[in-house]
Amino acid sequence: MTSYLPGPHPTRSRAVVHDGLVFAVSSVADKRGGMYEQSRQALANIDATLKEAATDKSRILAAIVYIADMMQKPEMNRAWDAWADRNHPPMRACIGATLEGATLVEIVVTAAK
Amino acid sequence: MTSYLPGPHPTRSRAVVHDGLVFAVSSVADKRGGMYEQSRQALANIDATLKEAATDKSRILAAIVYIADMMQKPEMNRAWDAWADRNHPPMRACIGATLEGATLVEIVVTAAK
Amino acid sequence: MTSYLPGPHPTRSRAVVHDGLVFAVSSVADKRGGMYEQSRQALANIDATLKEAATDKSRILAAIVYIADMMQKPEMNRAWDAWADRNHPPMRACIGATLEGATLVEIVVTAAK
Repeated sequence: MTSYLPGPHPTRSRAVVHDGLVFAVSSVADKRGGMYEQSRQALANIDATLKEAATDKSRILAAIVYIADMMQKPEMNRAWDAWADRNHPPMRACIGATLEGATLVEIVVTAAK
Repeated sequence: MTSYLPGPHPTRSRAVVHDGLVFAVSSVADKRGGMYEQSRQALANIDATLKEAATDKSRILAAIVYIADMMQKPEMNRAWDAWADRNHPPMRACIGATLEGATLVEIVVTAAK
Repeated sequence: MTSYLPGPHPTRSRAVVHDGLVFAVSSVADKRGGMYEQSRQALANIDATLKEAATDKSRILAAIVYIADMMQKPEMNRAWDAWADRNHPPMRACIGATLEGATLVEIVVTAAK
């Protein structure tokens, strides 16, 4: 059984749930904020999506964090560290990449249900 | 049981199938085309690989699309939207990255069998 | 059951093991080396992490290799080819990205137990 959490586009989902795994991607609605604020928002968005999928951040297994400016990684880390569940720390990689428009951060997670 | 779909290099596979999951990467053979044409080709290549793995695009759970030029994301999206199964839309992230040579797009998918 | 292999930071893990899957990320301790040497080190690090998780490179299903300089991909490939298990070649994608400081390569793998 596979279920889909719709996003703004009909050809892709915000999250897909299958066989005990959840694949989710963050979005940042308000792109006026800096790296800390966008990261905080992206992580809150992941929380909301995981809740809809009947799981939560304590069940995240792996996260890839794409940031538009590696110089601002400390700001992303500041938001991550405030948010993370230290009893269940995900595997995480942080990669500098080109993102769309004013997006500074995008986060992809694999979580357990 | 794990099975391997060979690619051009003996040290890596085009796809690996394990325990109900398929991990696959596209390749684009003809790199003379623009973003739309290479994306169309990469997606057709994913279709062919998934078929060999006895599954299909309706079973894709997650996709990461790496593109060499974020300004041309609309062209990639045009190919994606024409190809996607709207009843089973994958989680998708699109990331701007440096790709090899004239490659404009590379797609990694996780699918269910 | 989910278990965590700690890394240097309490908010993220070097690897997470869940339900027969291992999600692991390499680190390179000594960043003075060139692409070949850092790749060799990152792969040795993956070996050590997988061993701690009671598995090994013959069980890697998928790998994403992020490199800081696509021109040096042949050097990364040289390390990969010397290391890889040709009877069990992972699905692999290699992506050019911005990495932190003097890091030239970072590798994320999904392995079976």
